[in-house]
Amino acid sequence: LVGIPYDGTSSYCPGSRFGPDALRMASDSLETYDPLFGYDLADIPLGDAGNMCVSFGDPKSVVDHIRAQVKGIMGEYPECRFLFIGGEHLISLPAVSCLRDKYHDLMVIQFDAHADLRDEYAGERLSHATVMRRIVDVVGGMNVYQFGARSGTREEFMFGTHTTHFYPFGLNMLSEAAREIRGKPVYLTVDLDILDPSCMPGVGNQEPGGPHFEVLEKALLSLKGIHLVGADIVELCPLRDSNGISAVAAAKMARQILMLLYDAQSG
Amino acid sequence: LVGIPYDGTSSYCPGSRFGPDALRMASDSLETYDPLFGYDLADIPLGDAGNMCVSFGDPKSVVDHIRAQVKGIMGEYPECRFLFIGGEHLISLPAVSCLRDKYHDLMVIQFDAHADLRDEYAGERLSHATVMRRIVDVVGGMNVYQFGARSGTREEFMFGTHTTHFYPFGLNMLSEAAREIRGKPVYLTVDLDILDPSCMPGVGNQEPGGPHFEVLEKALLSLKGIHLVGADIVELCPLRDSNGISAVAAAKMARQILMLLYDAQSG
Amino acid sequence: LVGIPYDGTSSYCPGSRFGPDALRMASDSLETYDPLFGYDLADIPLGDAGNMCVSFGDPKSVVDHIRAQVKGIMGEYPECRFLFIGGEHLISLPAVSCLRDKYHDLMVIQFDAHADLRDEYAGERLSHATVMRRIVDVVGGMNVYQFGARSGTREEFMFGTHTTHFYPFGLNMLSEAAREIRGKPVYLTVDLDILDPSCMPGVGNQEPGGPHFEVLEKALLSLKGIHLVGADIVELCPLRDSNGISAVAAAKMARQILMLLYDAQSG
Amino acid sequence: LVGIPYDGTSSYCPGSRFGPDALRMASDSLETYDPLFGYDLADIPLGDAGNMCVSFGDPKSVVDHIRAQVKGIMGEYPECRFLFIGGEHLISLPAVSCLRDKYHDLMVIQFDAHADLRDEYAGERLSHATVMRRIVDVVGGMNVYQFGARSGTREEFMFGTHTTHFYPFGLNMLSEAAREIRGKPVYLTVDLDILDPSCMPGVGNQEPGGPHFEVLEKALLSLKGIHLVGADIVELCPLRDSNGISAVAAAKMARQILMLLYDAQSG
Amino acid sequence: LVGIPYDGTSSYCPGSRFGPDALRMASDSLETYDPLFGYDLADIPLGDAGNMCVSFGDPKSVVDHIRAQVKGIMGEYPECRFLFIGGEHLISLPAVSCLRDKYHDLMVIQFDAHADLRDEYAGERLSHATVMRRIVDVVGGMNVYQFGARSGTREEFMFGTHTTHFYPFGLNMLSEAAREIRGKPVYLTVDLDILDPSCMPGVGNQEPGGPHFEVLEKALLSLKGIHLVGADIVELCPLRDSNGISAVAAAKMARQILMLLYDAQSG
Amino acid sequence: LVGIPYDGTSSYCPGSRFGPDALRMASDSLETYDPLFGYDLADIPLGDAGNMCVSFGDPKSVVDHIRAQVKGIMGEYPECRFLFIGGEHLISLPAVSCLRDKYHDLMVIQFDAHADLRDEYAGERLSHATVMRRIVDVVGGMNVYQFGARSGTREEFMFGTHTTHFYPFGLNMLSEAAREIRGKPVYLTVDLDILDPSCMPGVGNQEPGGPHFEVLEKALLSLKGIHLVGADIVELCPLRDSNGISAVAAAKMARQILMLLYDAQSG
Repeated sequence: LVGIPYDGTSSYCPGSRFGPDALRMASDSLETYDPLFGYDLADIPLGDAGNMCVSFGDPKSVVDHIRAQVKGIMGEYPECRFLFIGGEHLISLPAVSCLRDKYHDLMVIQFDAHADLRDEYAGERLSHATVMRRIVDVVGGMNVYQFGARSGTREEFMFGTHTTHFYPFGLNMLSEAAREIRGKPVYLTVDLDILDPSCMPGVGNQEPGGPHFEVLEKALLSLKGIHLVGADIVELCPLRDSNGISAVAAAKMARQILMLLYDAQSG
Repeated sequence: LVGIPYDGTSSYCPGSRFGPDALRMASDSLETYDPLFGYDLADIPLGDAGNMCVSFGDPKSVVDHIRAQVKGIMGEYPECRFLFIGGEHLISLPAVSCLRDKYHDLMVIQFDAHADLRDEYAGERLSHATVMRRIVDVVGGMNVYQFGARSGTREEFMFGTHTTHFYPFGLNMLSEAAREIRGKPVYLTVDLDILDPSCMPGVGNQEPGGPHFEVLEKALLSLKGIHLVGADIVELCPLRDSNGISAVAAAKMARQILMLLYDAQSG
Repeated sequence: LVGIPYDGTSSYCPGSRFGPDALRMASDSLETYDPLFGYDLADIPLGDAGNMCVSFGDPKSVVDHIRAQVKGIMGEYPECRFLFIGGEHLISLPAVSCLRDKYHDLMVIQFDAHADLRDEYAGERLSHATVMRRIVDVVGGMNVYQFGARSGTREEFMFGTHTTHFYPFGLNMLSEAAREIRGKPVYLTVDLDILDPSCMPGVGNQEPGGPHFEVLEKALLSLKGIHLVGADIVELCPLRDSNGISAVAAAKMARQILMLLYDAQSG
Repeated sequence: LVGIPYDGTSSYCPGSRFGPDALRMASDSLETYDPLFGYDLADIPLGDAGNMCVSFGDPKSVVDHIRAQVKGIMGEYPECRFLFIGGEHLISLPAVSCLRDKYHDLMVIQFDAHADLRDEYAGERLSHATVMRRIVDVVGGMNVYQFGARSGTREEFMFGTHTTHFYPFGLNMLSEAAREIRGKPVYLTVDLDILDPSCMPGVGNQEPGGPHFEVLEKALLSLKGIHLVGADIVELCPLRDSNGISAVAAAKMARQILMLLYDAQSG
Repeated sequence: LVGIPYDGTSSYCPGSRFGPDALRMASDSLETYDPLFGYDLADIPLGDAGNMCVSFGDPKSVVDHIRAQVKGIMGEYPECRFLFIGGEHLISLPAVSCLRDKYHDLMVIQFDAHADLRDEYAGERLSHATVMRRIVDVVGGMNVYQFGARSGTREEFMFGTHTTHFYPFGLNMLSEAAREIRGKPVYLTVDLDILDPSCMPGVGNQEPGGPHFEVLEKALLSLKGIHLVGADIVELCPLRDSNGISAVAAAKMARQILMLLYDAQSG
Repeated sequence: LVGIPYDGTSSYCPGSRFGPDALRMASDSLETYDPLFGYDLADIPLGDAGNMCVSFGDPKSVVDHIRAQVKGIMGEYPECRFLFIGGEHLISLPAVSCLRDKYHDLMVIQFDAHADLRDEYAGERLSHATVMRRIVDVVGGMNVYQFGARSGTREEFMFGTHTTHFYPFGLNMLSEAAREIRGKPVYLTVDLDILDPSCMPGVGNQEPGGPHFEVLEKALLSLKGIHLVGADIVELCPLRDSNGISAVAAAKMARQILMLLYDAQSG
């Protein structure tokens, strides 16, 4: 578990920098055992590396700085698999590019209400709204699976349809995709705004009309068996989480993704 | 788009007077393109007439005052179709009665958790709880379609069953109704409390047990093809919208209804 | 209706002591007629006995004190059936044990996100996390039906599976169970955290992934016809109910359970 | 104690209809003894007459309706003195006019951030913004003492200066005024927005720059010895009282005014 | 720094169990240098021992359990001085009694809106409302200085006046007291409700009419030079701290008390 | 009035980008007349230029972009004086540097809880924490008056003491300073965190222990008569303004500064 408290390019509501700490505090209210996944965190070797130090300022140098730290920690603990906690979605880029150095056939699965496929946003090529476009640059469109997009420009929807495995409006095709990529190393990036705002108000860009927690939980369960080598959970914004439900849901998801990582490593 | 910030007869939680402004601010966080409806607001001729000036005091004179302003703006822009943003539900009455003057076979579709069919409420014949009864007086019960009522007195449920097209507890029969009224001029009034409070806490009267945003969105989509000549969205109450999800959902609905209006006009 | 404002053993977020008052205030925003259940509270003989006086301190003496008061009020009004409003879940224990004295074949149905089957918790045998274990001690495991558990230790899930009628992850088997116990006296205990936190943020321990209000409402409706002799609604925590939806949902549920109690008594 | 939950003419943030209940709940957290005033509520004969029934609609009929009820309750309990809890400021008008019938030389002291001296507001002569002007009509300007006004139109400040005992920007001159009116029957109306919003955020119209609670408390203490025959506390708006401090402060003030009423009656 | 997250006897609003973590998080927003006290935390040897493990249940065993842990940690680090972070006020009792074992002439200074001098409360001799009475039992009334009480029963005010150095309604006499006890070992207990609720809404029992932060800060500064051997800050209740100002103020106070402890030890 | 919604370098709580809109909405609840300053906004020629378009990303290019826009609007309306609404404090730098081009002897008065005199912060020379250091670079230390600093590093306090007119801990010396700079062109920058968090919770960095609104209001009044040529109000962060008092206070301050600008221009 590594926190990356960065939200420098948030275009609507900032505050995801407080995400990692809120997620940790909320996890105190949860059991360590997951009756759906069948594991108990208490039985899994697990560490928390704290929050990265990120500055603000020029996105390019911030991304470089995060990449250097990810590289460093991956070098220090070569046997570990990492779950990164954002911070905004841009942090996925340095994480993916480090993993891509290690796994040359890396696949990326994205859960997200937004396509994030703009080529630039407000004149900037590095931002939460362009991050998947940059990841396509790194791993190639055919290695990217995008689920649940329900917001974007017409251009993004066109680009997605022609370039990536693009499954908007839901998670139905996920188990089929999971079958396709069985055996290949996979990175999973979960933008929490994939969930309906009723379940997850505490995100930077609320987008009404998404799946509920129970649906997402079952989608994650259907990923059991894939070769998961890294993951992130991004965009938790506690400033809009007035009754605490977002942080708890993010913490439960973190528990389940840690179990997927463990399952992939041990199985 | 016309805001009517009136909530003088709210019986439980007032504050819908702030609804129009909250809806406008929240719309900044949304894209202009709607991948479900296939339109982009940027391509639609569109104007915002600001908020009406409404006083408080005697409901009858307020309703008359609103009616005069609606009449005025409809006269000024005879080629426009209007989406009114409440304010409380009573504002639908002057809007419908103006449109009825223009379209003599006007149909009214209502989405609402409440029947609003009381003949009087707290001694007053003009209020958010009697508005549909007054609209029945104006357009006739057989021209009114009511969807989703899950709260009311026994008398209201009886009245609805015998007088209007009354479909309580859901939106299932909507596409059938849409087929029935194809070709006729339709006014759509959406009381936001039709949605479950988990999606829409920011309303005057929360009524647990309603449809989620996704269901409503599909219901709206099924109205594509009807001859929509006017609409309103009412009862947004930002004072209870502690995490902002109500305003965003209302803004997305406004985007979709504007697309329905455009589709009906251009198609 | 009896309020028991006790939350002395809350392990995560306390505050359910304010539950009874918040539920009463929220009920002002609801109609007395329920179109689903077909009753009107105005036609049902009904009383509100106010809140019990509970101290804090040693859980054992608190439980004894509540038991004495329940016994007292049951003696005073022998013809009444009671709906107790918590307070935390521990208050179910004295209520059940008093009713067990009266009905020797008492069945208990529990709706709850947690199994509450620990034998002790933080060194204490009396707490909200052990309450069902203590109730099993009182009425016997085969007289206990547990629905909806989605959180607990591995040991609790094992114990439940072997000892009680244990139906985790949903309410599907409820109507079948209702058929099994037809004719027997039943006590219903509803821990509000059974609901998904999107519908019910205001509870002591939010557990993402539960049913929505509409599902629970239908589950309650399917209990029409059982011989309900008492019930409680527990764990409403207004301090986390920032937009008021939890209190309204709890109040609507109270209305519906009062109708079940009336239906069982009169039918 | 009589609650009058009316806020039909609120011009900015409505919600004071919930004021009386919020004040009562908050008073549970306070002691009955006041070390500054030296009384204990437990030793004072005291009753709570609940909330009046007020409708919405035409302000004139609402004011008439409240006046009739005040008259009724004063007739029923001729030996009692009343503290009315609003609701908005307009409710002072019927209260004052009833007391004026009983005491022909009635003086009125107002604590308020606003002069409330407009002759009409938004076309309406009866509203929270004109209430003191109407009270001047009833008792005469020279019988009105206004303290603390820090907001209004230039015309209101002119009118106040020429017509009433007008002491804007503070409470300094209060003890001098108390000396002047010693022996005469006095009605005290406290608009809670007199306090700085840091102490009292939960009001309809926050006006930064007012006195703090401690200052107001001492001002009240300096009224010990006047012949207080009635009082009100108005404009508590719980919807903006996110951390509860407004309701507690209003409840403490109510305790102290009840002591002033008792002191005047018994002394 | 030692957190003691206990709130089992809270009589109004519970939640102080979350106090220590909230204080730590808020301290991230503050500088380490204090321009008033002239120290920089970065230059002071300092450690954080985390939160104590406290159960709920019988207050007596909880107090014993805390006392054992305080004794343990004091034995382990005999050269350290401790600042305890509550939790509710009852935690001061075990802390004081351990220090009394070490310093036989221990003085206790209390800042508090409440006298906390009841002999029992709701039948319980150990609670936040009796804690100072129990501390008087331990160290003797003439060794206790109480500042700022503005709420309590008549009996508590009488008892205080006759038994302890009792200075209600302010902090004026503090520097004189500081002179009196110069050289003697002192324990300082700060119940955060001493502050006015406008500065410190996030406490269990808000009591309007207290000093503002700046006044308290200067009072603390006037304690420079006393022989401070231990301290606590209690009753921070984040559930009511809707805008975060309470946690920041508590954190700044913690910084200043740590500087007083360092000054006393090094000077 | 020009809004600059930028908060890219916020180090603690971001969100000041929403500041300008929140200030405008809150100003609806205020009168246009100010009884303290004696002006009515309705009588003052006044315009609102809306919000600037600011991107995120590299602070240097953002500052350059803002500077270009300020220059543009100053060129377009050479006879106007501007009040800029932040956004974070960094926006003062481009505003001051444009005005310095016009007025070569420009003085800068700062109201702020922080010295903002770091030479760099987190490796960045352009940020809200270094902005006054950069302004010293532009106008020279002897032309800078800093009031109210109560937080900073030891180095900043040293630098301020030796370089600027540095008056920490209050606003006492303000009228004297006003006399000193009479006749010279002055830019006033108000960081809202100068106010105590009880009055102004909605800022990026709350710093307990500051002046209350009334004190600040009088300080502003004492600036009547100086030759004010521009001003800004920065760091309003609505996400932490849970009860709305911050936005109202900022709006009232904006009204008063607009009156100072008018007074300086017309007088």
